[in-house]
Amino acid sequence: MDVSAKKSKSSLKQGLIDCDFHQTLKSFDDLKPYMPRVWWPRLSEPEATLPITIFKPVPLSRRDASPGNGLPPGSDPEYAKVDALDRYNISKAVLTGSLLTVSAHNNPDYAAAVASAFNDYTLDHWIPTDDRFLASILVATQDPILAAKEIDRLGSHPKVVQVICTVSSREPFGQRRFYPIYEACVRNNLVLALHGGGEGDGINPPISAVGTPTTNFERHNILAIHHMSQLNSIVCEGVFETFPTLKVVFVEGGLAWVPHLMWRMDKNFKGMRNEVPWLKKKPSEYIIEHCRFTTQPIEEPNNEELIQMFRMMRAEKTVMFATDYPHWDNDTPTFVLNKLPEDLRRRVAYENAAELYQLNSKPLVKEGGPL
Amino acid sequence: MDVSAKKSKSSLKQGLIDCDFHQTLKSFDDLKPYMPRVWWPRLSEPEATLPITIFKPVPLSRRDASPGNGLPPGSDPEYAKVDALDRYNISKAVLTGSLLTVSAHNNPDYAAAVASAFNDYTLDHWIPTDDRFLASILVATQDPILAAKEIDRLGSHPKVVQVICTVSSREPFGQRRFYPIYEACVRNNLVLALHGGGEGDGINPPISAVGTPTTNFERHNILAIHHMSQLNSIVCEGVFETFPTLKVVFVEGGLAWVPHLMWRMDKNFKGMRNEVPWLKKKPSEYIIEHCRFTTQPIEEPNNEELIQMFRMMRAEKTVMFATDYPHWDNDTPTFVLNKLPEDLRRRVAYENAAELYQLNSKPLVKEGGPL
Repeated sequence: MDVSAKKSKSSLKQGLIDCDFHQTLKSFDDLKPYMPRVWWPRLSEPEATLPITIFKPVPLSRRDASPGNGLPPGSDPEYAKVDALDRYNISKAVLTGSLLTVSAHNNPDYAAAVASAFNDYTLDHWIPTDDRFLASILVATQDPILAAKEIDRLGSHPKVVQVICTVSSREPFGQRRFYPIYEACVRNNLVLALHGGGEGDGINPPISAVGTPTTNFERHNILAIHHMSQLNSIVCEGVFETFPTLKVVFVEGGLAWVPHLMWRMDKNFKGMRNEVPWLKKKPSEYIIEHCRFTTQPIEEPNNEELIQMFRMMRAEKTVMFATDYPHWDNDTPTFVLNKLPEDLRRRVAYENAAELYQLNSKPLVKEGGPL
Repeated sequence: MDVSAKKSKSSLKQGLIDCDFHQTLKSFDDLKPYMPRVWWPRLSEPEATLPITIFKPVPLSRRDASPGNGLPPGSDPEYAKVDALDRYNISKAVLTGSLLTVSAHNNPDYAAAVASAFNDYTLDHWIPTDDRFLASILVATQDPILAAKEIDRLGSHPKVVQVICTVSSREPFGQRRFYPIYEACVRNNLVLALHGGGEGDGINPPISAVGTPTTNFERHNILAIHHMSQLNSIVCEGVFETFPTLKVVFVEGGLAWVPHLMWRMDKNFKGMRNEVPWLKKKPSEYIIEHCRFTTQPIEEPNNEELIQMFRMMRAEKTVMFATDYPHWDNDTPTFVLNKLPEDLRRRVAYENAAELYQLNSKPLVKEGGPL
């Protein structure tokens, strides 16, 4: 782990923060130095490494994002810096990683080991290469206790700003068995990011609410229902009352479903609040205070409608820019930000993320950590 | 079956059409005259009659909608007429029935028998009592061939305007095994209504996309994901290319999710249309042409936001008024319609429904039917 660049977290007054920038391995062999040998055979058998989705877009990533020599897009920090950070003038990029489907694996010990090794690889091979990279800690959610241990192991690293896992799961994230993850996020002053991936894979239920869709087109259209289900569960169960400093980012789920869900929850709260006496305010208030949503893949109505939708969801507080580099459908900053009026553009481009990740105020070295 | 009131379907130029008006049985014994004796024992055992949801709101219906004598709300047409049709000056009420969870039952033969008996009961005991009632044919979707037979059995009754089933299912409705239902709808010139109910019950998958929620509040907030999943499937699979005259109404699923899904589908269509070469136009165009959405339970943002949302979803074509009488959360006409500007109010209150159900132009007696 390199901590020399820790000062870079302060003094960000303006710029462009990319909240979804994917780094990956050159090959699964990269994990071996960080993993017990008992798991190594799985790393050499692609079909045994992680749950495989038959819906995966082919290719998943932009071919032109490959650093060459047949290496995967997003596997070389030097290439990614030139190809994305420099090209788009990105001030900070929150690395959201890959291998997110560890949470869909049947074996929670193996899943935790993969996540842990991937985190070490990121902190060793990506974070030291550039001051602009910030790290997420990947966790597998099958065993929240193991996930919490991983968060405690790395959470005080000064370049780690959040914990990340898939938005998909077998059980809704508001339920109490997941609380160790939230406790660890709060204890380490880290944001929790729920990122698309793993829907219908491995141990997870079908992708749509009514079974398995037919095409990747159909699948991709409906992915937001996982974000909706988790957001709803987390708010309804009172997670933000139990953990009042917790912030949750919904990554790669789109945006325009948020007003619907806020209104639906607020309406039903009037009639059914007796079931959730722990909620002290309207569900939408928890959402606006505690939840953030990244732009990619942004919906594409006309600009007037998009801005109306942004206003409805209080985008000046809740929306943060993301490219999803180097995936096939990544957005460029101009494509997204040119749609917005100046006041929203500034908030979405960097202010909301700078505030969320405390890039101006976070202690440079936290107490009690391993450093 | 009474057909004396068939002329009432014509000449509706204005008024108020309620697209979700629930009638029910006085008791399951009401079904016996219409069902083979082999199924009678099930009707006397409440826990064996239909899949039971532990999430059901208690009570499901307004207590003041009971006709008295301990009878269920919505079980007496004479009381319902005074309590709702007269009180709210409703010109036509599309009966959407009850027992919708037949589609979640494990036994498709029993499910079809219950649906069929309920249809006969409705046509005998409700439709003849008032010119304002229009009927839906309840079908169970486990066996689409049986469902199609039921549609053909009753579809030419002059007061039958649509087929109805739950929006929940094990498999997405765009898939080809459901085509017999669409063929029968088209053959009988009937609309298809997908109505909330049965989510997570019986043979159906969990209610949310990530497992079973904890409270009915949480469940109710997220029910739209079933509507979203089915709409997405039906459009993506090209059902509206195969059945160009088919119209589908999404009942009791809310409205404000529609713009999100339209935009998401249109965006992805640009990148993934090679997977759905049968689609000849943008997904949103199919939705606006073929799909309708009923107002109850309407979202409750401020009026400006609601009207913006209505414009985004082309409500002047796609939205129809509904009370959901006599359920606990039913809407009144003034509560909904007073929110809308005059041009939208007229379309939502009756014009869209009058056009959809062909109340001015439908042949009074169709050829080839049993009458």
